[in-house]
Order: sequence, then C-alpha cells, then structure tokens
Amino acid sequence: MYMDNSATTPVNPEVLKEMEPFYKEEFGNASTLYSLGRESKKALNLARERVANLINAEPEEIKFTSGGTESDNWAIKGIAFQKRNKGKHIITSVIEHPAVKNTCKWLEKLGYEITYLPIQENGIINIEDLKKAIRDDTILISIMHANNEIGTIQPITEIGKIAKENNIIFHVDAVQSVGKIPLDVKKSNIDLLSISSHKIYGPKGIGALYIKKGVRPEVLIHGGGQENNQRSGTENIPGIAGFGKACQIANDNLEENTRKLTKIRNKIIKGVLSQVDEAYLNGDPEKRLPNNVNFRFSAIEGESLVLMLDAKGIEASTGSACSSQSLEPSYVLTSLGLEPVNVHGSLRLSLGVENTLEDADKVINDIINVVNTLRSMSPLWNSKNGKSDLSIAGDEEYGLSK
Amino acid sequence: MYMDNSATTPVNPEVLKEMEPFYKEEFGNASTLYSLGRESKKALNLARERVANLINAEPEEIKFTSGGTESDNWAIKGIAFQKRNKGKHIITSVIEHPAVKNTCKWLEKLGYEITYLPIQENGIINIEDLKKAIRDDTILISIMHANNEIGTIQPITEIGKIAKENNIIFHVDAVQSVGKIPLDVKKSNIDLLSISSHKIYGPKGIGALYIKKGVRPEVLIHGGGQENNQRSGTENIPGIAGFGKACQIANDNLEENTRKLTKIRNKIIKGVLSQVDEAYLNGDPEKRLPNNVNFRFSAIEGESLVLMLDAKGIEASTGSACSSQSLEPSYVLTSLGLEPVNVHGSLRLSLGVENTLEDADKVINDIINVVNTLRSMSPLWNSKNGKSDLSIAGDEEYGLSK
Ligand SMILES: Cc1ncc(COP(=O)(O)O)c(C=O)c1O
Ligand SMILES: Cc1ncc(COP(=O)(O)O)c(C=O)c1O
Repeated sequence: MYMDNSATTPVNPEVLKEMEPFYKEEFGNASTLYSLGRESKKALNLARERVANLINAEPEEIKFTSGGTESDNWAIKGIAFQKRNKGKHIITSVIEHPAVKNTCKWLEKLGYEITYLPIQENGIINIEDLKKAIRDDTILISIMHANNEIGTIQPITEIGKIAKENNIIFHVDAVQSVGKIPLDVKKSNIDLLSISSHKIYGPKGIGALYIKKGVRPEVLIHGGGQENNQRSGTENIPGIAGFGKACQIANDNLEENTRKLTKIRNKIIKGVLSQVDEAYLNGDPEKRLPNNVNFRFSAIEGESLVLMLDAKGIEASTGSACSSQSLEPSYVLTSLGLEPVNVHGSLRLSLGVENTLEDADKVINDIINVVNTLRSMSPLWNSKNGKSDLSIAGDEEYGLSK
Repeated sequence: MYMDNSATTPVNPEVLKEMEPFYKEEFGNASTLYSLGRESKKALNLARERVANLINAEPEEIKFTSGGTESDNWAIKGIAFQKRNKGKHIITSVIEHPAVKNTCKWLEKLGYEITYLPIQENGIINIEDLKKAIRDDTILISIMHANNEIGTIQPITEIGKIAKENNIIFHVDAVQSVGKIPLDVKKSNIDLLSISSHKIYGPKGIGALYIKKGVRPEVLIHGGGQENNQRSGTENIPGIAGFGKACQIANDNLEENTRKLTKIRNKIIKGVLSQVDEAYLNGDPEKRLPNNVNFRFSAIEGESLVLMLDAKGIEASTGSACSSQSLEPSYVLTSLGLEPVNVHGSLRLSLGVENTLEDADKVINDIINVVNTLRSMSPLWNSKNGKSDLSIAGDEEYGLSK
C-alpha cells in the first residue's frame, strides 16, 4: 500500500501509452526538417497546451525542464543574474524545498542577500513579515505553494498581490500542489512557477517552468536554442508527451480526487489521533494538501516506524525523500518550533489517487500496532502510565492549533 | 530509411525493456528508506557501472544529468565558477556544439575571456595553435571529440597531455563519439566528459558528466543532494536504467559496428563523389566518425535536398538538428573556409546500426536523382556543360585533402 506519493508516483498506464510511440516509431528529433520529426513537434505543442491548461497559463509560457529541481534553480538563479544590477536581495521562507533553499545558499556565496521568512506554528508564513522584509533592492520573492513535508498551503494569492504592488518578481514552487489543488497563475499574479511530472503520475526527469510573458530570467542551460532559445537540449519527447497527458488527467479529475483524498486523509488523522496517546499532527489541520498527513509520536524514531510499516506492506516516509538518508532532523519540522527530540518521531503519509477508505482502516491499525511495539521497547516510554518520560507536548498542542 | 542518427536515435528494444519495470512496479524514489526504493537504487548503481565501463572511468566518477547539453553547461560553467579566482581564460574551438559555444558566449558576458581555436581545412585544430593559446590564467580547455556535423575527430589524447602538463582542466564533449569510437578517459587525461543517451539508442532526457576524482566543478543544479551532492533532482530511474543498458550494448558491439559502419560510409562517399559532378566531402576523409558522411553539392540548397530525400523515404539533415530551422549557414562549415554560398548545398547522412550495404545503394541512387532534379531547376547550374555557373571548387578540392 503505497503512501509516499509526495516522494514520487507510479506512472499512470494512460500516460505510459502516450509515451510509447515516441520511443519507437516516432522517435524523431523535434527540430528536424523531415516528417518524422514533425510528429514530435506536434506532441510537444499538445503537451505544452495541456500543462498550460492546468495552471491557466498560455502554452508559450510553458518551458520544459528536467524536473522541479531544475525549474527552481532556473527561476531563482535566472532572476538573480538578470536583475543583478537592480538589486541582490531575495525573500524566501525557512521551509522551502532544498531545490530553493540550496540555490539561495549558493547565491549568498556570490554576494546575494537572502531573507528567510519564519513560519508560524501552523506552518504558514505571516504576511506582515513579508511586507516588512521588502526592500528597494528586493528582486525576487520565492515562496512555495504547498510544503512537501507537512502539506501546508501558503497564501500565494495574497503574496502575489504584494509582489505586484511592489514590482517584485514572484516565483512559486508548486511541485507538490499542482494537480492537487486549484492553481491559477493569472489570478495569483505569479511570474514564475515550478512543476514536476513525477509527482502527478507522469514520468521522472521532466518538469516545467512557467514564465509569464515579458519575464525573462537569464538562461540556465545554453545550447542549440530549443524552447524558444530559453532552455536548450534535445527535447525529451516521450517524457514531455507523458507529462502533458498526466497534466490533462490531473485537470480532469481535480475536484473528484480532492474530495476523495480529503475524506481518506481526515479519516486517518482522526483515527490515529483519537487512538494513539501522545500523537500529534504537524502542520495546519485545514490549510493543507488533501493528500498529506504528517504525525509525530513521542518516544519513538520515525525511521523505525517507516521500516516497520514497510514490513507490513505500507510505504511511507519520515519527511522528504531526499533527506531521508541523513540523520539531521527535518528543518521543516524544527522551523515549526519543535525540539529535535520531538521531530524524530515523525511520519508522513502522502496519499495517492489509488488509495481508498479501506486503506485508511488498514493504515490506522498498523500505525497503532507499530507505535505500540516501538514504545514497548523505548526507554523514553513509560508503559506503566502510558506516557512518555520526556513528555513532549501537552494536550493544548493537539493539531498544533492554539 | 533513417540516416540522421547524429540528431537522435530510436530506442533499442532491449533498452526499452530495461526501462519498463521502473515505470510500473518499481517506480520508487531511489532515496527512500523502504524496499520499493531500494530496487531503484540498485538500478542506479548498475547503470553507473555500465556508463563508466564504456569510457574506462570509475562508477563514482559518473554523474547523471538531463543530457549532453546540461553536461556541457555544467562542466564549463562549473569550472568557470570554481576557478574564478585563479583565472578567467578558457580555450575552446570554433566548431564546438552550441551547448559549448553558447555557454562560452554567456561566460564572456560575465567577464570571462574565451579563445576559439580555428580549425584546419580538414576540420581539425592545430596543436600548435593550442599551445600558443595557453596563458597563466587559463583554467579550462574544452574541445569536442567528434564534430556533430562533419564527424571529424580531434586529437584528444594529445590535447589531454598538453592540458595535464600545463595543469589545466580538460573537458571533452564526447556526445557524438561515445559508443562509436574507442574512448578512454584515463589514457587521454580527461577531467570532464559529456555524454548523451539518445545518441546511442538510449532514451532522450538523460546523459552524464564524467568528473574525474578530485575535480570539483561548482554545482549547476542545487537541491536535495542527489548524485553525491553534485546534481540534485529526483533521479530519472527509467531513463538512467535505459541509458546504462544502451552503454553496455554499445560497448559490446563497438568494434563490429565500427567495421560495418565504416564500410557503408565509404561506399556512400565513393559512390556519390564518383557519380555526381561537383560533389565534395566536408571534413577529413579518414579522421572521421565511422557513421558520418557530409557532402556539399554546388548550385543547390541543402534544405530542398533533405525534403526531396524525405519524399523518397530517406531521413537526412543539412547539418545539426538544432540549427536546421534557422537560415544561417552552418558555422562549422564556414569555419572550414567555405563560402556561405557553397555551404548551403550541404547534406549530412549519419548512419545507424540498422543501416546496411544495400541502404548505401539506395541512398547513392536517390542522391544522384535528387541532385539532378534540383540542378535542372537551378539558375546556378548550366545543364549544357554540366557545371555550375558559380563554380564553387576545383578538382583539387576533392575530399578537402590537399
Ligand atoms: C516542493 C518541492 N519542490 C521541488 C522538488 C523537486 O522536484 P524534482 O524531484 O522533480 O526535481 C520537490 C520534490 O522532490 C518538492 O517536493
Ligand atoms: C556534439 C554535441 N554536443 C552536445 C549535444 C547536446 O546533447 P543533448 O541533445 O543530449 O542535449 C549534441 C547533440 O545535439 C551534440 O551533437
């Protein structure tokens, strides 16, 4: 039972079917003169339309990249280089994905100044903090739409309005939200937006950067002039065609999936919080992705939890995939104000379109069992009174709401 | 009959078979803790070995990228940024692929100085020019192994020796040569080498940069820390697995393919040059890729030639795929010393492993017919004496050898 869809998703069979011809008969290079290449060109255009439709952009505003990470790098470095004579100040948040965070860290080495906005206890930035952070030399605001660990949704339309009023470019990392919650780049005044295919049942190694007409980040990958001279490299047609199809399917099923996933999500949250002692929900209970659940349990280790759930046939995660091999506590969770010792007992379940309400029953049960087993072996757990010795939180912290 | 394998190649069915499980059951993220992700990790390691074997590198020296273009950008910008305090001078050649050329042009905007070495009439640089170009502040030499338009092979082992003696990093764009002619990064003292999967019957959207142990170009794409913290982004496992398989197949069949392709190539060259008036071979007749043929014909346009051959079922090209939509004459051919008017009548045939000696017969015949038809309509062709009016070259220029 796969519940790690924020890490990656399986490719939808319809998506795969869309890709296959371009590996075989229609393998031509999209830039060639002869007819074989023309089929590739057509597929490219169709995919561009489908991606654009999902976020209410124009097809020519979509540029294909190798994934969400490249899109983030391109958007941020591209504006940093382009506007270096106007200013060198960038505003972002403390809970951005490493693709944004480490890009900003690199720019600091080159003399840029970055403001990392804190988040509130619910995982959401304070708009007043943003307003105060804006300076004359601010060239870019980069705030993610939904967080990859705790699923909290930032007020991007409010942020977009402020960015526009102050004439600052606004970049949104929408890798986790696209295809899961409504997104309208026009309405939210977004200039640049990163998307990744493999998070929405499309293939890995492909993504896009939406670039609003008139915005011109410096090129990140120079070469033969593909993507209207903005992103070079022979186009990955099977990947692009599959990505386009995945966007179309996500678009067609957005409301239905949201409704269904929200139900499963809420059932899991309620089931676990009501039946497991000292279990808490990380992030905002409402302003969160329909498919995201993130618990923390006192007195146990998230890694053990993940491995024991795996043994029971449930794939889950402690947080983001990329940091799961490191022993550092999640910076997203510590940014919520949690102590490292408490962060360590976290578990992320990210649901997918194939999950059902019955899956919720199984996962609730398995979590209860696994948590009990782990606590029975934990020196931090007092099985006599059913409380942790190093009690990590009081009742008022339930769901992190105050 | 596909003869444009330098633009791209169809995916080998065995390669596709290697990829398929990773779209379906084994779609897990390679960075996760649970067992599903571990299969991806295994595939990643196997592919790294297979790519390394093809160029005599160590597996840990192979970093996966989104293709040849990204690899070139990473290598050159990476060293430029890393060594910016040591120097800002880079040596390359006038016939590099746009992925190298336009990266260098961008660095010029940032204050770097680039020396573009000329080529001789046979398409090969003069080693003496290289030696003279080296300065105290030279940080990088970037010379391609084989050219994508005229197939000429540069003396990379000699260049590597000079780079090493002068303590300068040496980058090789081997996108066209890898898997087609022997390549040994150790023997040739290469520090960085770019490879692309879709040129050797692997999928598009994947490639690699070989980075010699100890060499540390600045990161181009920051994020979650994949590829040993050097190239972030969720790994494109199907692409990587397919690329690895393609490398293994290329390696196993290198000698046999070279022998076969050289025969077909030579048959086409001989057949056309001996039967078509004012037909010439661009590039060196011997120091060229086994699969590359590049003709020029006086008094006709390459574009028309390509389109008429397409109508006869032959896919070919005027030069590189990426420039085929532009009306500019090829800078590779003008670098050979040819006048633009002569460059326009060029035709590239790049053979693939599926071509046969019978294909050579057909293509020779079709070229003869198409050239005759086009010339019969050309104002530049004098059908009375069978010569161009604007005679572009004398007999001594046959094959560009002197
Ligand atoms: C919020 C967010 N941004 C960026 C990325 C990077 O995307 P990709 O894996 O396609 O490079 C991810 C996924 O890992 C993500 O969750
Ligand atoms: C010599 C050379 N370098 C680099 C590239 C770029 O490779 P890719 O298409 O994989 O980005 C190509 C192919 O177009 C090439 O022929």
